[in-house]
Amino acid sequence: MTTNERTGDATSEVESGEEEEVLGGGELAAHLIKSGITRNEMIAAITNRLHAEAMASLPPNVRRRIRALRTLQKEFADIESKFYLEVHALECKYERMYKPLLEKRAQIVSGAYEPNDAECVNPWRDESEEEELARAVQNAAIAEGEEKKEEKEPAEPPMDPNVKGIPDFWYTIFKNVSMLCEMMQEHDEPIIKCLQDIKVQMFEDPIGFTLEFHFLPNDYFTNTVLTKEYSMKCKPDEENPLEFEGPEIYSCKGCEINWKKGKNVTVKTIKKKQKHKSRGSVRTVTKSVQADSFFNFFAPPQMPDDPNSTLASDTQALLTADFEVGHYIRERVVSRAVLLYTGEGLDEDDDDDYEEEEEEECSTEESEDEEPAPRKRGKKQNKALQENPAECKQQ
Amino acid sequence: MTTNERTGDATSEVESGEEEEVLGGGELAAHLIKSGITRNEMIAAITNRLHAEAMASLPPNVRRRIRALRTLQKEFADIESKFYLEVHALECKYERMYKPLLEKRAQIVSGAYEPNDAECVNPWRDESEEEELARAVQNAAIAEGEEKKEEKEPAEPPMDPNVKGIPDFWYTIFKNVSMLCEMMQEHDEPIIKCLQDIKVQMFEDPIGFTLEFHFLPNDYFTNTVLTKEYSMKCKPDEENPLEFEGPEIYSCKGCEINWKKGKNVTVKTIKKKQKHKSRGSVRTVTKSVQADSFFNFFAPPQMPDDPNSTLASDTQALLTADFEVGHYIRERVVSRAVLLYTGEGLDEDDDDDYEEEEEEECSTEESEDEEPAPRKRGKKQNKALQENPAECKQQ
Repeated sequence: MTTNERTGDATSEVESGEEEEVLGGGELAAHLIKSGITRNEMIAAITNRLHAEAMASLPPNVRRRIRALRTLQKEFADIESKFYLEVHALECKYERMYKPLLEKRAQIVSGAYEPNDAECVNPWRDESEEEELARAVQNAAIAEGEEKKEEKEPAEPPMDPNVKGIPDFWYTIFKNVSMLCEMMQEHDEPIIKCLQDIKVQMFEDPIGFTLEFHFLPNDYFTNTVLTKEYSMKCKPDEENPLEFEGPEIYSCKGCEINWKKGKNVTVKTIKKKQKHKSRGSVRTVTKSVQADSFFNFFAPPQMPDDPNSTLASDTQALLTADFEVGHYIRERVVSRAVLLYTGEGLDEDDDDDYEEEEEEECSTEESEDEEPAPRKRGKKQNKALQENPAECKQQ
Repeated sequence: MTTNERTGDATSEVESGEEEEVLGGGELAAHLIKSGITRNEMIAAITNRLHAEAMASLPPNVRRRIRALRTLQKEFADIESKFYLEVHALECKYERMYKPLLEKRAQIVSGAYEPNDAECVNPWRDESEEEELARAVQNAAIAEGEEKKEEKEPAEPPMDPNVKGIPDFWYTIFKNVSMLCEMMQEHDEPIIKCLQDIKVQMFEDPIGFTLEFHFLPNDYFTNTVLTKEYSMKCKPDEENPLEFEGPEIYSCKGCEINWKKGKNVTVKTIKKKQKHKSRGSVRTVTKSVQADSFFNFFAPPQMPDDPNSTLASDTQALLTADFEVGHYIRERVVSRAVLLYTGEGLDEDDDDDYEEEEEEECSTEESEDEEPAPRKRGKKQNKALQENPAECKQQ
C-alpha cells in the first residue's frame, strides 16, 4: 500500500463524519494534511504519536519508572548546562590567547607589518615546490599571452609586485567560501574589497559574541566597523527541559549602516507605472524595495521580545540561516582565514558546484520546506566525528 | 563545453605524447582519470591545483606574507590543541558528576531500585494527557481485538503488569536509533535483549574513552561486559599542522567475546561442493565466514602500528564508520537513553525512512566512494548550529 492510497483512505474516513478519540497513523495523516503542514512535519507528527502510543500501552508501573528516568534526565541537563558554561568560559580564555596572533595577522594583511625571514618559514612545507610552480605558472602565462592574444578576453592585470600587504585577502575568502559567496552580490564586491579584518569579541555574561567587520574608508558608508551581536542562553528551557542540547542563540542584533547618498546597496528603486482611475492618465512612480546584498546580514529580522512567542516560519528560516552564517564566520572563517584564502582549508562544498547541481536535479516537491543542507564533512575522508559540547540553536 | 568533452580532449592531448610541466584543469583531469581515482577526488585535486596556481601567480613578497600567516596559523593550532585538552579534562570532570545519575538510571531499568513518588513527577509534562492516551490506547486495543480477531496476526502479548524494571530498555533504543538498528541483525536481537547498560569511562592520559556494554548472564557468551576502547591524540600533525581540527581518534580496540559453543553469531558456516579433479567425485565441505552482526563492533579492523602508513580505502571506510558509531553511542545514546527509548529525542533520520529512499533513487555512479551521509539536523528546525570544540577524526 503506498502512502498516497493510505492517505486517501484515511481522508475519506474522516470526511464521512466519523470521529475517533485515538487517531492512528492514517487518520492522523488526513487530519494533518487538512491543516496544510508539510510531509516532513507530518511524518514527524505521526512517528511522535506512534511513540506516544507505544509508551501508553505499557503497564502503569513501567510508565512510572520512565517518568523517573525523565526526572534524572532533567538533572543531567541541569549539570550539562554548567558544562557548556565552562566550555564557553574556556573559549573566552582562549580567545584572549589567540588575540595577539590575529592582531599580527591583520597587520600583515594590511601591510602595516612586514614579516621577517624567520616568520616566513613553513618547515612542514616544501617551499621549492611552491617556487617551481610559481615559475611554471608565470612562464605558461607568458606563453599563453603570446599565442592567444586575440582569442581570449583580456586577462586580469598582474598584481603590482610592490603591493602592500595581501590585497583582497578577505574578498578572496568571500569568493572561496560558498556560504559567503552566495550572499555576496555583484554590487557588494567593491565594498567587500575594502574589508580589512573580521574580529570576534566573546562575552561571558550573558554568554555571546560579537562579529566586527573592519572596513577601510570607502565610498559606500561612513562606518569603519560593522557589528553583529549574538547572545546565547545556556539553561534548559523550563517547559521543555529535556530538549536541552547546549547554548542556544536567543538574540541577534545588527548595526545601522550609514550609507552615503545613493550608495545603499541593500535597497533598489523600481519604477512603476500608475494609471489614474478616472482620467486614465499614466504616471511613473519610483518605489524602494529591499535588494539582495551581503549587507542585509546587518539587519536581521527582529526577534520577538517574548521568547515564548512563535515566529512566522519564514522569519524562523531567515534567523536559522543567519545564525548559521554568524556561527560559521566565528568558528571557521576568523580562526582559519589564511587556509580559506589559499584554498587549503576549504570544505568540499566550498569548492565543488557539481554535486549541488545534481542535488537540484533530484529535488522533489519538498525542496521548499527543507532546511539548508547540513554541511558536508571536510575534505579528508576520516574527518568523521563531531563532539558538540556547545551546539547553538535558535530558541 | 561539458566535462566529458573537456576530459576527452585532454586525454587525447596527453596520449599524443605531449608533456606539459604545468597541468591545467583539463590535462590534470586526464592524468587523474588514468590513475583510476574517483570523480570527487578528481575535483578536489583539480581545485587544489587551481588554488595553488592562483597562489603561484602572486608576486613573491605577497607569497612570502602568506607563508607568515601560515606560521601564525600553526601557532594558533598549537594553542587550540591545548583548548581541546582542557575541554576533554572538563568532559572527564563532568562524567564523574553524571555518574550517580546514570547509576540510578541503570538500577531503575534493571528493577534493582523502585523510584518513589516524588522521583516520578515530571512537572513540565501534562501527566493527565499521558494517562488519557494510555486509557484510549487500551480501549482501542480491546475494541480492535474484538472486531478483527481473525484478520490480524496475533498481536504481541501485553506486558506483564508486575514486570520488574523497564524490560527491553536498551533493545528498544537499538530498534529506535537507525544507526544501531542497521547494525543489529535478527540473530543479534535475543542477545541485545540481555543488554542491561552501556557505560562510558573517560581517560585523561592519553585522552580517550571506553564503552562498556553490560549484559545479563545469557546463552550466547560468558562475558558480562563487552568493551570498546578509543584513544585520541590532540596535537597538530607534524607534517600537516594546519589540518588540525581537534582530537583525532588514533586507535580503537575491541574485546574478545567468549562465545558459547555454536552460539557465535558473527560467523556462519556455508556448505560448498568440491569436485575431485581426477576422480570426479563430489564432496561437501563446510567453511566458516564472517556474518553480519552488531557484535562485529567488538572486532574492528586492526590499526597499523605505524600511524603514518596509509590504510586500504575499505579499511579506512570501516574504521571511519566504526568511530562514528562509537562516538555517537558515547555522545548521544548513553547520555540521552530515556529520550531515545521514548522517541522524544530521536533525530529526524532515526525515524524517517522516506527520505533515504529518495536519496537512493538519485544516487549516481559515485555512491560507492561517498562518505556516509552526514547526519541530518535534529527535529527542531532551529537546532541549526554546531560548535565543535572537539571534533574527532581518524588519523
